[in-house]
Amino acid sequence: MTSRMRTEIGEQPEALRATFEALLPRVSELRALAERTRQVLFIARGSSDNAAMYGRYLIEARAGRLCAMGAPSIATTYRAKLDLNGVLAVAISQSGRTEEIVESLHWAADCGARTVAVTNGAGSPLAEAADVALVTRAGDELAVPATKTYTTQLAALAVLGVGLGANVDVGEIARVPEEAEKLVAGAGADLDAIVERLATVQGAVVSGRGMAFSTALELALKLKEACYLHAMGLSYADLLHGPIAVVDDDTPAILVAGDTGPTLAGTVALARRVTGAGASAYGIGGGAELPAACTLALPGPDLPEWLAPIGLIVPGQLLTEALARRLGIDPDAPRGLGKVTQTD
Amino acid sequence: MTSRMRTEIGEQPEALRATFEALLPRVSELRALAERTRQVLFIARGSSDNAAMYGRYLIEARAGRLCAMGAPSIATTYRAKLDLNGVLAVAISQSGRTEEIVESLHWAADCGARTVAVTNGAGSPLAEAADVALVTRAGDELAVPATKTYTTQLAALAVLGVGLGANVDVGEIARVPEEAEKLVAGAGADLDAIVERLATVQGAVVSGRGMAFSTALELALKLKEACYLHAMGLSYADLLHGPIAVVDDDTPAILVAGDTGPTLAGTVALARRVTGAGASAYGIGGGAELPAACTLALPGPDLPEWLAPIGLIVPGQLLTEALARRLGIDPDAPRGLGKVTQTD
Repeated sequence: MTSRMRTEIGEQPEALRATFEALLPRVSELRALAERTRQVLFIARGSSDNAAMYGRYLIEARAGRLCAMGAPSIATTYRAKLDLNGVLAVAISQSGRTEEIVESLHWAADCGARTVAVTNGAGSPLAEAADVALVTRAGDELAVPATKTYTTQLAALAVLGVGLGANVDVGEIARVPEEAEKLVAGAGADLDAIVERLATVQGAVVSGRGMAFSTALELALKLKEACYLHAMGLSYADLLHGPIAVVDDDTPAILVAGDTGPTLAGTVALARRVTGAGASAYGIGGGAELPAACTLALPGPDLPEWLAPIGLIVPGQLLTEALARRLGIDPDAPRGLGKVTQTD
Repeated sequence: MTSRMRTEIGEQPEALRATFEALLPRVSELRALAERTRQVLFIARGSSDNAAMYGRYLIEARAGRLCAMGAPSIATTYRAKLDLNGVLAVAISQSGRTEEIVESLHWAADCGARTVAVTNGAGSPLAEAADVALVTRAGDELAVPATKTYTTQLAALAVLGVGLGANVDVGEIARVPEEAEKLVAGAGADLDAIVERLATVQGAVVSGRGMAFSTALELALKLKEACYLHAMGLSYADLLHGPIAVVDDDTPAILVAGDTGPTLAGTVALARRVTGAGASAYGIGGGAELPAACTLALPGPDLPEWLAPIGLIVPGQLLTEALARRLGIDPDAPRGLGKVTQTD
């Protein structure tokens, strides 16, 4: 039987096409809203927070604005009053109904911020609360692990980056859905072998840098929530500051990179270091160079670095779904989780 | 034989006393530097980045300034130009010689920021590069896992918080060294039992919220680097957005909280949820309430929430050192690590 998660992975090309079509015309609206703001504050949790990490690198690296990853507890638990004049607050929530996120966006506005919502929930409290709501067109998502709602959040954040003046070629967006189509068809010849190997270990390090760091965090979350794997998501550099000690025979590294970009060389070097120490490295993306340095590898999208994360997570989603089934877990309903998480 | 790490853990009360004595007189200098700045940007890696997380919560919750945790790759890999006018950049490095951090602080200044260094390296390139250098008085640290250089970084950041006008009682600082003395004497009756249990598992979730989140991240890093444990550091709320699925019979939760403060109740509730599901929760700190909700627990410091993280990590350091020895690892020199990490 096909899992709901696998079906929803396959719906991503169409969801991305619909989302870009709906949101690209709103670039000028975003540009107007962002006038007289200088920084960006992201407010999100879980997969949405991983999407925010993509937005953060895109906007800092290409649009020259400082981004902060907000801590919702500052708003909802400490109830602190921050000076947010000149700040564009961007809240991201699949449902648009996570109270903590809705409350944090109201708080940001009270502190002086202009506000954007990114949500799949048209008419949700989050969409209603924001100055500008970017509603993704993922359709209903029923499996607990987010897939198409995550990649369409990335699409919305790519549009936000364009609205904030990112130095990118907007025309490249048109190729995203067709690249996603190639990726959802299957993760390549090494998938089964990686699944078999991960089925025998307790943990893994998942690493990437810069724009691809978001993919590493999201894949680590997926592997934790759907496969109960001790997956530790770390940036390439943070990994070298201590946690590299944890990589060994029983703890492989999964390394993610775009086909191009300034972080590829470091990721390839990390793969060589891991395999040189006798441990396994499994690559995702990274053109021809990363697979050559890895034990096994899954191809990524043929997209420029700034759009690559939208495709890079797809092989990771397929890996997660296959590993969950291999372990006898229903990927659609892992233990302990509901579709909308409420935290205070 | 006593490990060097254990000796250095014991040196913390004196190191904290000396650091506060040296840095508290510099509050007015910090205040002057911070005039006409509105946000704070932290630049750090590894344990220093965990210290930054403490500074971030302290300054947002008590001093009303937005804080961003910087991504050094934006400076050193992407070489992006950000608008950092009105930003106070705070770079933290034990040695003051990690090139990536030194380069990132120069970059921040070039982008318009005012700059502070927090380092144990008097005369180091980082100290020389900053407008104001807060040099900690930890003395030489030889064990690879940072202990006294970490807690004295927290002390320096508490002083920075005071300089930025945090709403705190500065007089409470005087009790920190004596509370540290009580903690370094030993971690309490449950330590051996927790060590034995952690010696039989592959992974653990380490969680805390708000000010204590920094302690959770730092303990997770220690357990990864010195015990090769799959330790996943997560905030209380992020844990509930997916990774809670990973907690089971073989994956306990280690939960950290101050004796008081608005995040204690949520941490206690999380402990009840974990033990209610049949898994183990080990508490650190949290007054009388957290131990009552946990399987086993280590007492924390009798300090107000804003200073508690300086003491809360100490039982975690003792746990790490004892677990490493129990596993036959030399805690002073874990595999794959040197004392100064260079990343690009």
